Amino acid sequence: MLRELREQVLEANLEVVRRGLVLYTFGNVSGISREDNLVVIKPSGVPYERMTADDLVVTDLDGNRVWGELRPSSDLSTHLHLYRSFREIGGVVHTHSEFATAWAQARRPIPPMGTTHADYFYGPVPVTRELTPDEIDRDYVHATGAAIVECFGNRDPMEAPAALVADHGPFCWGRSPDDAVHNAVVLETIARMAMYTLSLQPAKVGVSQALLDRHYFRKHGQAATYGQQEQ
Amino acid sequence: MLRELREQVLEANLEVVRRGLVLYTFGNVSGISREDNLVVIKPSGVPYERMTADDLVVTDLDGNRVWGELRPSSDLSTHLHLYRSFREIGGVVHTHSEFATAWAQARRPIPPMGTTHADYFYGPVPVTRELTPDEIDRDYVHATGAAIVECFGNRDPMEAPAALVADHGPFCWGRSPDDAVHNAVVLETIARMAMYTLSLQPAKVGVSQALLDRHYFRKHGQAATYGQQEQ
Amino acid sequence: MLRELREQVLEANLEVVRRGLVLYTFGNVSGISREDNLVVIKPSGVPYERMTADDLVVTDLDGNRVWGELRPSSDLSTHLHLYRSFREIGGVVHTHSEFATAWAQARRPIPPMGTTHADYFYGPVPVTRELTPDEIDRDYVHATGAAIVECFGNRDPMEAPAALVADHGPFCWGRSPDDAVHNAVVLETIARMAMYTLSLQPAKVGVSQALLDRHYFRKHGQAATYGQQEQ
Amino acid sequence: MLRELREQVLEANLEVVRRGLVLYTFGNVSGISREDNLVVIKPSGVPYERMTADDLVVTDLDGNRVWGELRPSSDLSTHLHLYRSFREIGGVVHTHSEFATAWAQARRPIPPMGTTHADYFYGPVPVTRELTPDEIDRDYVHATGAAIVECFGNRDPMEAPAALVADHGPFCWGRSPDDAVHNAVVLETIARMAMYTLSLQPAKVGVSQALLDRHYFRKHGQAATYGQQEQ
Repeated sequence: MLRELREQVLEANLEVVRRGLVLYTFGNVSGISREDNLVVIKPSGVPYERMTADDLVVTDLDGNRVWGELRPSSDLSTHLHLYRSFREIGGVVHTHSEFATAWAQARRPIPPMGTTHADYFYGPVPVTRELTPDEIDRDYVHATGAAIVECFGNRDPMEAPAALVADHGPFCWGRSPDDAVHNAVVLETIARMAMYTLSLQPAKVGVSQALLDRHYFRKHGQAATYGQQEQ
Repeated sequence: MLRELREQVLEANLEVVRRGLVLYTFGNVSGISREDNLVVIKPSGVPYERMTADDLVVTDLDGNRVWGELRPSSDLSTHLHLYRSFREIGGVVHTHSEFATAWAQARRPIPPMGTTHADYFYGPVPVTRELTPDEIDRDYVHATGAAIVECFGNRDPMEAPAALVADHGPFCWGRSPDDAVHNAVVLETIARMAMYTLSLQPAKVGVSQALLDRHYFRKHGQAATYGQQEQ
Repeated sequence: MLRELREQVLEANLEVVRRGLVLYTFGNVSGISREDNLVVIKPSGVPYERMTADDLVVTDLDGNRVWGELRPSSDLSTHLHLYRSFREIGGVVHTHSEFATAWAQARRPIPPMGTTHADYFYGPVPVTRELTPDEIDRDYVHATGAAIVECFGNRDPMEAPAALVADHGPFCWGRSPDDAVHNAVVLETIARMAMYTLSLQPAKVGVSQALLDRHYFRKHGQAATYGQQEQ
Repeated sequence: MLRELREQVLEANLEVVRRGLVLYTFGNVSGISREDNLVVIKPSGVPYERMTADDLVVTDLDGNRVWGELRPSSDLSTHLHLYRSFREIGGVVHTHSEFATAWAQARRPIPPMGTTHADYFYGPVPVTRELTPDEIDRDYVHATGAAIVECFGNRDPMEAPAALVADHGPFCWGRSPDDAVHNAVVLETIARMAMYTLSLQPAKVGVSQALLDRHYFRKHGQAATYGQQEQ
């Protein structure tokens, strides 16, 4: 069942390890088949070295397991809430990558400090509000997803394909599992450079709107000019 | 004698090197057989590259060597005091891993800055008081162990399986040598992320009790839900 | 066409990857044949792993493609403006290397903090002024090159073979593509050490003129004494 | 001539590269035969990848080349002054390792922040005064050595086998070239941890005299207890 998607999700999970974004099993990637309304996700707590495409778990959008023998990632409900709320996304990644997590722990959004950021994120990477004790006690994993969606409001989630969950770490997304991992790798890099920038210039607030527009739209949308796609 | 435990302790010593926690010979791992009341520990100052299970040293809980030809690690007395005082532990690791050591040198406990910390340590990672000149002169290595035990007071040592020895570095423990090394690796990561967090938010004090409870108990105790163990 | 130069430019592009200066496709190297007034540059958005010398693009100094099938790097106009303005340079490199980019994002020139800097850069590494919204909208990539040239004024561009483009990242150059990459690697190192230096000594302003002279001229100019060239 | 020492010095030069202490050719190691009063040193500006024991240069203590075809390291006079002044040393290393260099650029001695430091350096790692313009113009390389010796005064150079040359970088020494490299590696580690410590505790001044004594003398002198040497 969904063999190709399972292979993609496995590969995306291994890529976050190769890129140094996860330690031990602290991270998970999922992908969705919008046609089937089914999600493929990493199992909980299984070492990456021996994970195969047959260890992945398939669930419906309510979290019922429809294929696989292992328990899904403990973050499943957050992934599902993002898939239900953000209709254009095809993959979700959660990591504890160190610099993005530091911003999340500091409860600060990452401002667009330069063009590397502006090429991927049209404005700050948002940070969620803290959850209430009640939310944490009742349905923590779902509430995490709801807090991410809440901090976007009317903002297009494809224009800043990541959020920092306060005191926790980043969730990233993209058109596919592979694209979501790419965004997670870039997020970690801009988080690191933004921290270094603040150490050199504590008052730095972000780039101009003109520069943000110029860089974001050269890589995204109708008028994009980067790469070979229009050749 | 204790061949299997010696193999485990050797492997755990090599793992701290592979994980980048030790430089040259600055670190040591031991394990205990509770059945035999015997401890296996790394020899002092032997390069990791040529260490074999036959180089390890077996001692009783008073530090008498009962097997092996080399001198045990110079930190033996600290390990033994931890084994005598913390009855549930099966392995002890000492490293000079750089970020945990920086906190130890700063004489600051590491507050629970986020969920990565809360998944492993139920509250701050404590730091010992400074030893007095008299303690240092008389029985320094034992006094180091005593200071660790003292800073736990009535706190369960399994709920925060590490301590920072002031001006020195971390000691970690776990149910086995392997588990102790796992905790040492995680400690270094949370030490690093906590330092980055303070650089972004100097006033950050730690996560809420609700979040600490939620994360710690999803991985520990009767109601744990992480991983595949209940499948 | 220009096969040898294309091989050199390919190799220089791969070297910036091996040196850890670029993530994904965030960087580009070009080289010029002054004899032919033709520039060889990396194509836009092609992964380094599968790039060959046949993927490189040859253009004239006005940016007309005269050989190759792919679209050139989106930074082409900046490179061309540097070649037209700085007549001694034979190669140009643009990266988003993390520490040099942090200084660019902080909009601060890098002062000569020590002899490592002085061996390569005779004085600060300059930072460009911010571009106006009008410049960004009209001809951004060319305006970037113009801002670099402007910040040099009458200063010899070979005496500080790099500039930080504000809110963007470094451009470096040299007598050849290979030499430009060498300068980019050194720039990243001095950017990193300069940031560490400021964290230890926020008031540090730079080395004495005597030390700057001594180190710069031992490696550059008629009286250079470093290396084996005069043997 | 001095084949064995040349092999040792070559190996020591390669070790500083493997340990990440040098970039390109920014570093040099030498060794001395006290019997012959001859010094073996790395040639100037030769890439490490193709250096052989036959490329090394042998000089007398006045700097006259007595064997070899290449020009010696441009830092030769500093090495020679150290050998003439510090009679117990057998090897000298100069690097631009990044954290030690940051302290040198900040013109701050590295205080003994913890036991890792105290195991190797009995007190602060000193920093030289700045050279005068006159010293820089006249005999810079020799003056660098003289400034190192000056900052030791009556202090035993074996009790702190390194100095930071202000605005330049570290020189380290030891009983052999290999031992000098070992000290250079440790110096970089303690420089890094000391910087992290200050970021967590800006007021930290150093360990107690009792702790310094305890750690330094367990590894050095008649009463040393570390390692297997007394077995």
